[in-house]
Formats: sequence, C-alpha cells, structure tokens
Amino acid sequence: MNIFFAASIGPTTEILLALFLMLLAAKLAAELFERLRQPAVAGEILAGVIIGPSVLGLVAPSEFITMLAEIGVIFLLFSVGLETKPSSVFQVGKTAVLVAVLGIVLPFFGGWLLMRLWGAPNTGALFVGTALVATSVGITMRVLAAMGMLNTSVARIILGAAVIDDILGLLVLSVVSSTSAGTINYWELGTTALLAIGFTAFVALIGARVVTRVAPRIHNLRISDSLFIAGLVLCLGLAVAVSFIGIAAIIGAFLAGMALAEATEGDERLHAQTNGVMEFLVPFFLVNIGMQLQLLVFRDWSLVWLALAVTLVALVTKLIGCGVGAWSLGLKRAAQVGVGMMPRGEVGIVVAQIGLSLGVIDARLYAVVLFMAVATTLIAPPLLTVLFKADASR
Amino acid sequence: MNIFFAASIGPTTEILLALFLMLLAAKLAAELFERLRQPAVAGEILAGVIIGPSVLGLVAPSEFITMLAEIGVIFLLFSVGLETKPSSVFQVGKTAVLVAVLGIVLPFFGGWLLMRLWGAPNTGALFVGTALVATSVGITMRVLAAMGMLNTSVARIILGAAVIDDILGLLVLSVVSSTSAGTINYWELGTTALLAIGFTAFVALIGARVVTRVAPRIHNLRISDSLFIAGLVLCLGLAVAVSFIGIAAIIGAFLAGMALAEATEGDERLHAQTNGVMEFLVPFFLVNIGMQLQLLVFRDWSLVWLALAVTLVALVTKLIGCGVGAWSLGLKRAAQVGVGMMPRGEVGIVVAQIGLSLGVIDARLYAVVLFMAVATTLIAPPLLTVLFKADASR
Repeated sequence: MNIFFAASIGPTTEILLALFLMLLAAKLAAELFERLRQPAVAGEILAGVIIGPSVLGLVAPSEFITMLAEIGVIFLLFSVGLETKPSSVFQVGKTAVLVAVLGIVLPFFGGWLLMRLWGAPNTGALFVGTALVATSVGITMRVLAAMGMLNTSVARIILGAAVIDDILGLLVLSVVSSTSAGTINYWELGTTALLAIGFTAFVALIGARVVTRVAPRIHNLRISDSLFIAGLVLCLGLAVAVSFIGIAAIIGAFLAGMALAEATEGDERLHAQTNGVMEFLVPFFLVNIGMQLQLLVFRDWSLVWLALAVTLVALVTKLIGCGVGAWSLGLKRAAQVGVGMMPRGEVGIVVAQIGLSLGVIDARLYAVVLFMAVATTLIAPPLLTVLFKADASR
Repeated sequence: MNIFFAASIGPTTEILLALFLMLLAAKLAAELFERLRQPAVAGEILAGVIIGPSVLGLVAPSEFITMLAEIGVIFLLFSVGLETKPSSVFQVGKTAVLVAVLGIVLPFFGGWLLMRLWGAPNTGALFVGTALVATSVGITMRVLAAMGMLNTSVARIILGAAVIDDILGLLVLSVVSSTSAGTINYWELGTTALLAIGFTAFVALIGARVVTRVAPRIHNLRISDSLFIAGLVLCLGLAVAVSFIGIAAIIGAFLAGMALAEATEGDERLHAQTNGVMEFLVPFFLVNIGMQLQLLVFRDWSLVWLALAVTLVALVTKLIGCGVGAWSLGLKRAAQVGVGMMPRGEVGIVVAQIGLSLGVIDARLYAVVLFMAVATTLIAPPLLTVLFKADASR
C-alpha cells in the first residue's frame, strides 16, 4: 500500500493537515453559530479568520487550497443549478436584469466617489469601484439552500441577476483595466459581451432541452452512476468553456446544473452524491475567504475608518440599487434581493489582486478591499436569515 | 460573481481543463472497457497513458493533480473501510498475516535476485526489491466494489494483508534506505513498527466501539448531515495522524471508515454522499497512474526485456507468496488473494522516486519500476474479474 508518503513527500501530509484543520474548524464554528441561531456560513468564514494568518496562524492560504476552494464553489453553483429549472429563471428575467444593472451602477459610482473624496488617484478609485460591483452569489445560495428557500422567486431573481452581474461586471473590469493602460479595445469588449450573452442563452434555452432528451440514454450506459458522472463532466466542461470566453467558471457550472435540473428531478441518489462532493469541498471555499483577511495592517486607524466607510458604501449601494430594481415585488422581497446581492466574497478579492498587479492600488487599499469583501460576506448571512425567517416558517 | 478568474488567473482554467479531460477520458474508456467485458479500472488507467505525456500529451501530471489523486485514493479507502466491520477483519487475521509476510519475502528476494543477475549494484537491487514489496490495494478494492464482492472473506484477507503489508513494507524501506546510507537505526525502526501496530490495533479494537457509541450524539448536532461531516473529519484526521507516525495516509482513511462501519450501516444518504466524493476524485487517481508511464525510454530494447522480466517476477512472486499464504482457503480463493495483491500502482512509483532521490537507482531503472507498477496494476483487474465472475454470478 501507499507506504512511503509520510517519510518521503512532506507536502502531502502538510496539505492533509491543513485540510483537516480547516474542515474541523469550519464545522465546529458552524455548529456553534447554528446553536446561537446564526447562519453556519458566517461561522465557517470566521473560522478561516481565526485559524488563518491573522489570528492563530495554524493554516496559511496556499495555491492548492485556493484551487480546491475554487472547485468547491464550482460544485456549490452546480448543485444550485440542479435545483433551478430554466423556465423558472425566465419568469423573473426582466426583474433580474433591472436588479443587476442598478446593482452595478450604484456601487461602482459610490465606490469611485468615496475614494475620490478620500484623495485616491482616479484609476485607483475606479478599481475600488469595480471591486464593489460583482456579487459573490455562492454565499447567499448556501444560506438559502440551508433554509430550503432555493425555490422562491427571490432566489431565482438573485441568481439571474448574479449571472447578468457577472457578464456586465466583466465589461466594467475590462473598461477599467483598459483605462489604466491608456486605451480601450471596444472591439474585444463587444465580442466578449456578445459571446457571454449568447452562450448563456444557448445553454439555458437549448442545452437544457437536449440534456433532458439525452438523459435516459446516459442512464442506460454500462458505467455505474452514469448520469451523475455525466453531470460532473458537463459541469467541468462548461466551467472550462465559459472561462475561455471570459466568464467565471462558476457560471458555467451553474448553467450545467440548470441544464440537468429537469432530467435529474427526484433522483435522490444523484442529489445526495452531488451534495456529498459539495459538503466536502465548500468549507474550504468559505474558510479560504476568511484566511485572506490580514488584520495587522489595520493598526493604522485611518485605514480602519476607510475600510468601514468602503464597506458601508458597498452595503448601502447594493441594497438600494438592487432593492429599487426589485421594487415591483414589494418592500420585503426587494430588501431580500438587496441583501442577497450584498456579499462580494472572493470576487472583490480577485479584483483587488488585479488592481495590485497592475500597480493602480497599493497594499493598503488592497487590505481595505479585502476587509470589505470579507465584511460584506459576513454581514449578509445573518440579515438574510432574519429577512427569510418569516417565509421559511410558513 | 466570480467574474475575473478567466482573464486574470490562467492556472485555474488550465487545471479545470486538465480535470475535465481526465474525467472525460477516464469515463469514455471505462464505458468502452465495460462493453468489452473488461474492468473499468484498467480502462481508466489506460486513458491516463493515452492522454498523458507518453502518447497524446493532452495533460501532464502536476503537483495539484497528484495531490487531488492522493485525496481520491484516501476517499476510496475510506469508503472501502465503511463496508468493513472490524469483527470481519479479525476473523481472517491469521491468514492475512501469513499472506502479508509471504507476499513480502518472495517479491523482495525475487526482485533483488533478478537485478543482481542483470548486473545492478547491490543497493539498487535492494531498492527494486523493495518496490516489488508493497501492494496498492486501492485498485483491487475498486474492482471488487464494482462486482459487489467487498463482503467476501477473500476481500477481507486482501485488505487485512495490505494493512500488515504496509507496516512491514515500511520497515523494509527503512532498512534498505539505511543500508544505502551505511547505517541502520534499529531504535527508530522498532519505535515506528510498534507505533504503527499499536495505532492500527487501537483504532480497530477501541476506536470503532467509541464511534458506534458516540454516533447517535453526532447525529443530533445542528449542522446538516453531521455524521457524514464527522466521517470526513475523522477520515482526514486519521490520515494525518498515521502519516505522522510513518504509515500511509490511506491506511488511516481505511481505519476511519472501518471505525464508522457499524454506526453508518444502512444509512443510504451517507453512503451516497461518500460515494459521490469517491466517484468524483478516484478517476484522477487512476488516470494519474497511467500518466506517469513514459514510453519513450523503451526505445532501448534491453530495457524493455528488463521491464518485462521485473514485471513477471513481480506478478509471479506475489501470486505464489500470497497464494501459499492463503492456501488454507483452497486453490481458487488462494489464487484470488494472490492476484488481488498483485497491483503495485502508485506505491512502487513512490519507492522508485525515493531510490532516484537517494541516487541508488538511475533514470532507466526508474522507468523500469514505473513500467512494473503500471503493468501489474493493469494486469490484475481483468484477472480478478475472471477469477471472481463465478462467485459474483451465484
């Protein structure tokens, strides 16, 4: 058997130890938060802050863990897609577009304006604005799934808006990045946008029908659990495909899940298998977000105030922008949508990383954006729990 | 949402593409092999040879993929452990010890003798002998699981023997490594052996009882699927713990599964969840084995003959050694045990890597050992299928 790893290949044991500590900490925190009637998601992120470099330093973020976290969030969105029939998304199409557009415009200008007032150069301000744009919908979906609320129109609007968010946000980042380089390639911009929209529409409209028709044949293959396997292949395949045309991998995974939603309805074994993969991998995604936060830079108090201000702007602009977009649903649902779109999670972190690599934001602004990303992600789940509790108990 | 990975973080897309290609190739080959009435496992390894650097060069082995493969085989052994009650292993204890010991002595001396006859220096010959010692039981378990034969006494003997194999094999490697360094640390050797045996006995005897008693409490925790989660934590935890005392991580995973076997009996959701993780990760383990094979060095025909001779010795010595050890079960069962212990898989590869890093075997002998490891792994599944078919159809 696999005797010699311990003696010879140190990194393996080291990574296994990191995974063990992350999973243990995440689930202990989740259990504690559930007992305090707080959402488990927030607990798992906080577990990352605590075991990460900022506090205990038990585990450091690594390339392997980040990649595993990325696969985790891909599976999260895949399993959310499995619960989302295409027809139900189209019903909420108009509202979702409105929510997405307003939820991009307000945070972008709010973030830019705040940074200009603070005295940041224009390109840096534009980048912070961009970091405030994109929603990290995985967190919200995790909370709604735990409450059994994935099948509500609000959940569908948030998901639809997040997909559109992703496409529009991509354009904003392209424009802002081009600005910092001095030129804008309108042609490339237009092509990416068209490809992105076309691909999404194609999978949602035609892909799902094809999958539903082909599914019985896949079921009859010789390999065991063939439909589940085919789902995994489709999930990874679409994740790669959308990455190549410039959209986030998780959108592809979501579309793959959605394409399979009708064909796999009621297949409990398949759902449990997908759920198993998700339950194993998603904690690494959540803990990894928390581990990104470096608390030490905030010994400089002016940065603390800036971070709080940016976080406040991030929360308020998204709440108002998306809330107004969903106004037709009534005040309560509009608030649910607004709060559901609040978390920036790993997306804000990635935008900040790009800004840092382009040299348009410095290490201190990077820490501020990171704080905003983690804080918005921690604040949304408890608010969501409160806002949805009345619905859930019905 | 997670917009920007595609544009900014190339490696993510690259790795997702590799995973997609590996899973797709593995499952297409598995389906083809099943239709040809050959075991799917062999197909998935061959898929690795074909898409790997030796033939098409579509995917190259990487650190990430190797680590993911390692987690995959950990889950494979965990789920095998879930099907293995401790009591059933103890019933076959004596036979398993005999199978393990004879299955180590014969291949070790056979490999050493062959290399000495070929003209290799003594330390190199000792390393090749060591590479022939350790069984990669994952492959066999995959085949038996697919045939529904995990609950046979033969499967239990193979598993038990593989656990003992691992502990004894560790000692052989330690002695051989010390020899190449000129000194043998008997004290360290004895401590490791005692720790390994003690730990295994402790988990099998006491751990399982504790888990069975605690399980209902874990079930009552607030977090969803708490028993499955606890199983994951225990699996990773024991994998790490045994690594620290010098045993293979997969033995820890197997012990964790075995400790949970009684508590989770009949829990279909938990088994489906574990199965989902396994089905997702194990193909990477199998394809990765195939990708390790470099066919190009075999332009030198003398190496081809050596590789074939080493492989033949590996197969015959294990078959006879283990077969004689299991003689009390009758000819057919003894043959099943002997063939089940044949695959060297990733373990032979790891021994070869250590020998290479110590400078006692060269790149050509490394390729020979690699060939032996892949070949024994490819040959065993079809033989197992034939030998078990009569039992399975009953």
